[in-house]
Amino acid sequence: MRDFEIPGHLEVRDDHLFICGVDTVKLADEYGTPLYVTSEDRLRDNYRRFAEAFKGAHIFFAAKSNNSIVVQRILAQEGAGADAFSGGEVYLARLAGIPPQKILFTGNSKSDEELEFAVNSGVMISIDSHDELMALSRIADGLGKEVRVAFRVNPDISANAHPKLATGLKTSKFGIPRQEIVDIYKKAKGLPGVKPVGIHCHIGSQILEVDPYVEAVNRMMDLVGQICDFINLEFVDIGGGFGIPYQKGVRAPTPRDWADAIIPAFKDRCAQLGISPELHLEPGRYIVADTTVLLTRVNTVKKAYANFIGVDAGFNTLIRPAMYDAYHEVVVANRAGEENMGTYTVAGPVCESGDILARDRRLPAVRKGDVIALLDAGAYGYCMSSQYVGRPRCAEVLVHHGHAELIRKRETYDDLLHNQLIPGRLL
Amino acid sequence: MRDFEIPGHLEVRDDHLFICGVDTVKLADEYGTPLYVTSEDRLRDNYRRFAEAFKGAHIFFAAKSNNSIVVQRILAQEGAGADAFSGGEVYLARLAGIPPQKILFTGNSKSDEELEFAVNSGVMISIDSHDELMALSRIADGLGKEVRVAFRVNPDISANAHPKLATGLKTSKFGIPRQEIVDIYKKAKGLPGVKPVGIHCHIGSQILEVDPYVEAVNRMMDLVGQICDFINLEFVDIGGGFGIPYQKGVRAPTPRDWADAIIPAFKDRCAQLGISPELHLEPGRYIVADTTVLLTRVNTVKKAYANFIGVDAGFNTLIRPAMYDAYHEVVVANRAGEENMGTYTVAGPVCESGDILARDRRLPAVRKGDVIALLDAGAYGYCMSSQYVGRPRCAEVLVHHGHAELIRKRETYDDLLHNQLIPGRLL
Repeated sequence: MRDFEIPGHLEVRDDHLFICGVDTVKLADEYGTPLYVTSEDRLRDNYRRFAEAFKGAHIFFAAKSNNSIVVQRILAQEGAGADAFSGGEVYLARLAGIPPQKILFTGNSKSDEELEFAVNSGVMISIDSHDELMALSRIADGLGKEVRVAFRVNPDISANAHPKLATGLKTSKFGIPRQEIVDIYKKAKGLPGVKPVGIHCHIGSQILEVDPYVEAVNRMMDLVGQICDFINLEFVDIGGGFGIPYQKGVRAPTPRDWADAIIPAFKDRCAQLGISPELHLEPGRYIVADTTVLLTRVNTVKKAYANFIGVDAGFNTLIRPAMYDAYHEVVVANRAGEENMGTYTVAGPVCESGDILARDRRLPAVRKGDVIALLDAGAYGYCMSSQYVGRPRCAEVLVHHGHAELIRKRETYDDLLHNQLIPGRLL
Repeated sequence: MRDFEIPGHLEVRDDHLFICGVDTVKLADEYGTPLYVTSEDRLRDNYRRFAEAFKGAHIFFAAKSNNSIVVQRILAQEGAGADAFSGGEVYLARLAGIPPQKILFTGNSKSDEELEFAVNSGVMISIDSHDELMALSRIADGLGKEVRVAFRVNPDISANAHPKLATGLKTSKFGIPRQEIVDIYKKAKGLPGVKPVGIHCHIGSQILEVDPYVEAVNRMMDLVGQICDFINLEFVDIGGGFGIPYQKGVRAPTPRDWADAIIPAFKDRCAQLGISPELHLEPGRYIVADTTVLLTRVNTVKKAYANFIGVDAGFNTLIRPAMYDAYHEVVVANRAGEENMGTYTVAGPVCESGDILARDRRLPAVRKGDVIALLDAGAYGYCMSSQYVGRPRCAEVLVHHGHAELIRKRETYDDLLHNQLIPGRLL
């Protein structure tokens, strides 16, 4: 078995890469490329594995990681809530069937219109600043509503994440400094329209250690100890960031590893305080990343400084390698069983030198027309894609029990004109 | 006059920032935020200034820098051609009214479908690899057409650009190594469907020196000397990359400076060879960057590690600061005449620490509700925007002689569902 294979999910059959029993090469032929292919079966498995490990905790899927309404619909069926970072994400999560009491509207810069939309939607809100508290109180009170709120704490924790993704540092834009937390809960308690019921933090993304979570729990429980005598605290939300092994062979904690570290720490501190709030978690990447492969067709193979494979997906399709130097495993989908014959660099079609999807990978002998699969493309994939360089956004397919369904149509050139208006005098 | 003011273009009147005679604060109120505002007058001025300096040369606007059909329509009226980097950009340029003989389809990874589309559109094509030459010959010949082509050379030149944008390095994915150029022209001469008429290179982006262009001219003319005895060379295209002073006070060459360095070098070498090909140039940023401001509303002002201004535009709207550490001048549009009172960091609403639009800027005392203008947002702005974090893409307005017109409608939450399909069994 090759190290990228996962029995029942990603497998090599007759030299082709299969996902959930479906031949990716056939999918590329039938639906065209670039193409995101997501396994519903793997998605449900991932969610269940996480929820089972954290039994008793409440799971709020980080909607920012995947904006497919179908993915969110499936997770809603599994019982997930949603961490929604914008009015648009609240809208999608509600449409996907996630009940409002299981949606937490988070975010460091919410407009008054978004707050009003969220209040009317009945969701909970995580407040990021004093300005936001005052705005939300005014808006909710004006609508005659009382919103269940948490405050996002800046926990001042350094998880070993990419600098652009380390969200819990003292220097970050997120959250309220720890030393101001007690005062802001006191203030909120006296304001109309808001009812403080939770406390919230987030320490980063793609974290592959358990210790930062234990540290976060302890930091949060220190604060909980200072507010629980005057706030009836219903939940403690320690956010997401649970990482996955993009590079095969890298050791990553399992949900069980995380749960075994987090839950006892949380329960101990709760017992000391004599309280029993819910534990909330916001996994995104862990749930969706490995459900999905991005298929892209080889347009050219060119020997220049490196052996460049020119494909039809670029950072307009999958921005992670260009933006975060992220690593995705590469499989030549129609030669998945062949021996590696050369070292190749996979280049996208965008007009920038940084548009490289993978550097210096050992692969079978690649030819024009081959199909390349980039693995673990389900998190921060399609949702970050753009029409940059005049490229319509690609299609998405869901596979389930050996069967494929189109869940997002490919855009056409005409979509590049979407919403554009030409003044008559310029015609 | 403040150092960001440009008479007749960006001006402060009654403490408000005006663009082309229009109050940006009123535009933010009327059209909402985030909002891209482009001056037609400045666009025409920039193009004319560039074309006048390079009189006799042919200007191919780098369409990748701005995907507004209105901008391209205006440039078409001014006589510009287009450097189109994808089938979609060929489509837009043609719709904008740019004649096919003034469009060069460039790009390092073109699909067969794109090549066929381009051949049928009648545009010229810059070929990036041997694979592409063979595919294009086969496709054009099959359609009974002969395409006018150039080859893109990797000139092996280091311009002082951001590493992600330095397109002319030996290590880059672009172009054909210099030592293979003569052979590929010889090969092309014997193939059906293609007629080599030009030679093409590109050395980078946001270049603020003249010397790399002179070096590029010399490198290209060395190659021209080796092919002009068997190829009737009609043009030499030295690409774009002409930079602008994003940080006010930075010295940047004018078009006249560039022309004064490039044109004599080019003419001398042509005279030595006894040939008179056209000079082609592909400016993008220089033409559009300073035509446009991005207006964004302040949602929160928060004193944490820094004074964070939370605005409604993030890297979903303008990716340059997050992706390239790019600098954009910041003006508080409704306090543009006030004294600076504090140091602020402008943070977007995206769920990543890297979503910072500007760091540590001296600004007047900012309050919730203020309107922030990010200057020089016309290049690689809207065209790189996405719906990341569930945010509909923003609107665009054109201003002209003191009058504003909507040229791109704001997306709504419903646009987040664009093209999505939910299988019936999941409803």
